[in-house]
Amino acid sequence: MKARDIAELVGGELRGDGDIEIDSVADLLTATYAQIAFVEKPNTEITTDASCLFVPPGFDTSSIPLKNLVIVTNPKLAFVRVAGILHPLKYRSAEIHPSAVVSDSATLEDDVFVGAFTCIGEESAIGEGTQIRAGAKIGDGVTVGRNCVIHPNVFIEDGCSIGDNVVLHAGVVIGADGFGYVKDESGEYNKFPQIGTVVIEDNVEIGANTCVDRGALGETRIGAGTKIDNLVQIGHNVRIGKRCVIAAQTGISGSTVIEDDCVIGGQVGFGDHAHVKSGAIIGSQAGVLPGKIVRPGVWWGTPIQPLDEYKRQNAHVKGLERLKAEVKELKKKLADG
Amino acid sequence: MKARDIAELVGGELRGDGDIEIDSVADLLTATYAQIAFVEKPNTEITTDASCLFVPPGFDTSSIPLKNLVIVTNPKLAFVRVAGILHPLKYRSAEIHPSAVVSDSATLEDDVFVGAFTCIGEESAIGEGTQIRAGAKIGDGVTVGRNCVIHPNVFIEDGCSIGDNVVLHAGVVIGADGFGYVKDESGEYNKFPQIGTVVIEDNVEIGANTCVDRGALGETRIGAGTKIDNLVQIGHNVRIGKRCVIAAQTGISGSTVIEDDCVIGGQVGFGDHAHVKSGAIIGSQAGVLPGKIVRPGVWWGTPIQPLDEYKRQNAHVKGLERLKAEVKELKKKLADG
Amino acid sequence: MKARDIAELVGGELRGDGDIEIDSVADLLTATYAQIAFVEKPNTEITTDASCLFVPPGFDTSSIPLKNLVIVTNPKLAFVRVAGILHPLKYRSAEIHPSAVVSDSATLEDDVFVGAFTCIGEESAIGEGTQIRAGAKIGDGVTVGRNCVIHPNVFIEDGCSIGDNVVLHAGVVIGADGFGYVKDESGEYNKFPQIGTVVIEDNVEIGANTCVDRGALGETRIGAGTKIDNLVQIGHNVRIGKRCVIAAQTGISGSTVIEDDCVIGGQVGFGDHAHVKSGAIIGSQAGVLPGKIVRPGVWWGTPIQPLDEYKRQNAHVKGLERLKAEVKELKKKLADG
Repeated sequence: MKARDIAELVGGELRGDGDIEIDSVADLLTATYAQIAFVEKPNTEITTDASCLFVPPGFDTSSIPLKNLVIVTNPKLAFVRVAGILHPLKYRSAEIHPSAVVSDSATLEDDVFVGAFTCIGEESAIGEGTQIRAGAKIGDGVTVGRNCVIHPNVFIEDGCSIGDNVVLHAGVVIGADGFGYVKDESGEYNKFPQIGTVVIEDNVEIGANTCVDRGALGETRIGAGTKIDNLVQIGHNVRIGKRCVIAAQTGISGSTVIEDDCVIGGQVGFGDHAHVKSGAIIGSQAGVLPGKIVRPGVWWGTPIQPLDEYKRQNAHVKGLERLKAEVKELKKKLADG
Repeated sequence: MKARDIAELVGGELRGDGDIEIDSVADLLTATYAQIAFVEKPNTEITTDASCLFVPPGFDTSSIPLKNLVIVTNPKLAFVRVAGILHPLKYRSAEIHPSAVVSDSATLEDDVFVGAFTCIGEESAIGEGTQIRAGAKIGDGVTVGRNCVIHPNVFIEDGCSIGDNVVLHAGVVIGADGFGYVKDESGEYNKFPQIGTVVIEDNVEIGANTCVDRGALGETRIGAGTKIDNLVQIGHNVRIGKRCVIAAQTGISGSTVIEDDCVIGGQVGFGDHAHVKSGAIIGSQAGVLPGKIVRPGVWWGTPIQPLDEYKRQNAHVKGLERLKAEVKELKKKLADG
Repeated sequence: MKARDIAELVGGELRGDGDIEIDSVADLLTATYAQIAFVEKPNTEITTDASCLFVPPGFDTSSIPLKNLVIVTNPKLAFVRVAGILHPLKYRSAEIHPSAVVSDSATLEDDVFVGAFTCIGEESAIGEGTQIRAGAKIGDGVTVGRNCVIHPNVFIEDGCSIGDNVVLHAGVVIGADGFGYVKDESGEYNKFPQIGTVVIEDNVEIGANTCVDRGALGETRIGAGTKIDNLVQIGHNVRIGKRCVIAAQTGISGSTVIEDDCVIGGQVGFGDHAHVKSGAIIGSQAGVLPGKIVRPGVWWGTPIQPLDEYKRQNAHVKGLERLKAEVKELKKKLADG
């Protein structure tokens, strides 16, 4: 890709040599000949051997007078777009590996890759361009949309539904039974029916070894464009909206609702039936009590508080030693007085 | 199943049409013709299209005058029992998939399902009615009891023992090495022997991607009827009693003992050699220090405290701003005085 | 192994019968004939049926006058060494299971075990003595060193590099995409390129179902001799030094650096770009803010504090009820006065 074409693609302004060929992306420090990197802020001092750079408007070019630059409002986003072209997803050509166990009643559209040691169950359907990588197991009555990548050793239980352009990383488990029991007279736990399903909408990405339980009676749903990190637990009947981001090791208990455009840190815990309103941001390791309604804003701590309250409270706690000393002083004064 | 038979099965009192046929369970909101739902509390106001409802004694029938009702002390438990009949576990008929690698010295009782791409090692034994689903790997000298479901991609390491009616969800790892090392003179970590085993008693259910490490020298044991959620970590030589419930992402360090009938929330952390007495309840995200003895009662926080102490302390912390103001006021008065 | 040879091996001093044969290790309580156990502290009162014991110098032998003893400075380490000989790693003889899918361009050194339902991709290389157990999937361009054990259902993504003597327990995922996105004008998340790699140095052990993401642009690296427990999350571009110990369920966000010889408890959370200096010890469930520099010492809590500060602060919080009462008293006195 020529620098000129890159500039045009991202709607940026080219400085320098438009004919230079760029074959890959890299970060500033390691980038070298034929690579493009990016600078996020105008006043960054940099040294780089990259052949071309995305820079923001107002970037001080004096520090690197000889560079080829593409000036663009959001250099990181421009970088992402060009990376998507220069480093496309690994293509695996249409193939059904001889070892794969594909039910006769399953339907596969064109251009589907089905790797070694995979299973595709009865009445399941796999959309065009989708890759089912080695060792993935797809149950009965499962729908997987188009252009998905189902990575090795993923398991999708019977009846679940996966949209288009979904990526499930290795070891993901979709649709295992939720965790619900009722105690009987003898104190034994009896399993509440876990006969619902999971719906994963388009453009969702789910990290390695994450679990999404099926609904007990209804469905568990992950909204379009939502991104979920590794080792996350999503309980039965949870509903997550569109364009949410959920970092690693967070756990979401049954029936909790997270509306659109929320950002959830890592290792956050949600009690059941919590309800997070659209646009809320919850910091890492926070704890949300069962049934809690979380309004838009930034939240922190266990149990969660607005971030500024949390900070103020933390400051008060840190000031306790001094407060204690002051009270002691007062007591002394009063006794002396 | 006729409503009359359902009432008889659960020992409930039938109101309305005993001949109506019920074919499945559902929740109140989505239930429709030929479905049964349940109401937990007498004064719930409901609208439902279910053909039949379990309701508790004293339920105000005026709100739904035309319904078929089964009055029963514990409607949720009745619902669970009927669901178990109307929605039985998926049956997989006796079969050893041609791709399965089953050792000649392994013994399989009747009616065992062995799915594709499974391994069953030397001298291992699988009980009647058990399902070993696709991709599960069972090591050497493993015993799996009767009527178990070993879901896809589970791994059971050599020498572990699984009781009857055990469910291991996808990706569970039983009997991997525990985490123990001894530093030598050069600062390198030397692995403490991890040569014990894991015993899982009857009626245990273990959630997806949960790990139960083998004992270092002795055994790790999960007591009968205990239910463990997804992504839980159970360290070497941990002993968990009967009828415990452990929610997702909790971690239990080596040699900790949890006695019978405990309830443990999600994301709880236990240091090693802690001892939780029978009947204790520990709230989500709590932290239990190594060696701590936890008496029966409700516990919360890190390090754990009795719930009422935790609440009182939380209230005090929240009141710190005011306390600080009061001290300031006192100082001023004293200075003025 | 004769007791005499054991004493010689560990550089200990033999008491009693040097001819006694020891065939296995056990703990004090369960050890019996032909077994060796260890006592860590001189003044431990013990009863054991072990045939031989490692004991520290100064151990009071009067309590077990008839025993065969090996007196050694570090009895636990001596025990570990002898256990390594008496209980060697399970040997699996060189074999490529007929079901294995091994690329023609992959190179396997001598004495490699390749189990059932495994894949080894193009241009990958497996070192001498390494075991690739059933169901493990190794992508393209992967290097695995010598004498490694890759347990069942592990996945190693394209281009990752594994040193010698590395153990990856069941379900480990190495080199899945990191978690990085850039929002575009329409609010959709665009995936930042995750085209880097993972390097795991020699003598690393990684616990079951742990995930190590590939670098976004550079590499994620785990230093030689580091031991990582189950269900740990290691984000893209994290760099972990040599001889670190990281307990279960800890999560490390992108680009965080942990230098050599650190000890990290379980369920710890690290924000991105944190930097932990060599020798730091971080307690379980602690939280490290993004960008935080953690100096050597013992750290605790969220956000982390030096342990003694944490304890003092905790004591202050516990004393709040009393402080409040004192302030009330002062107010009363002043009003009365």
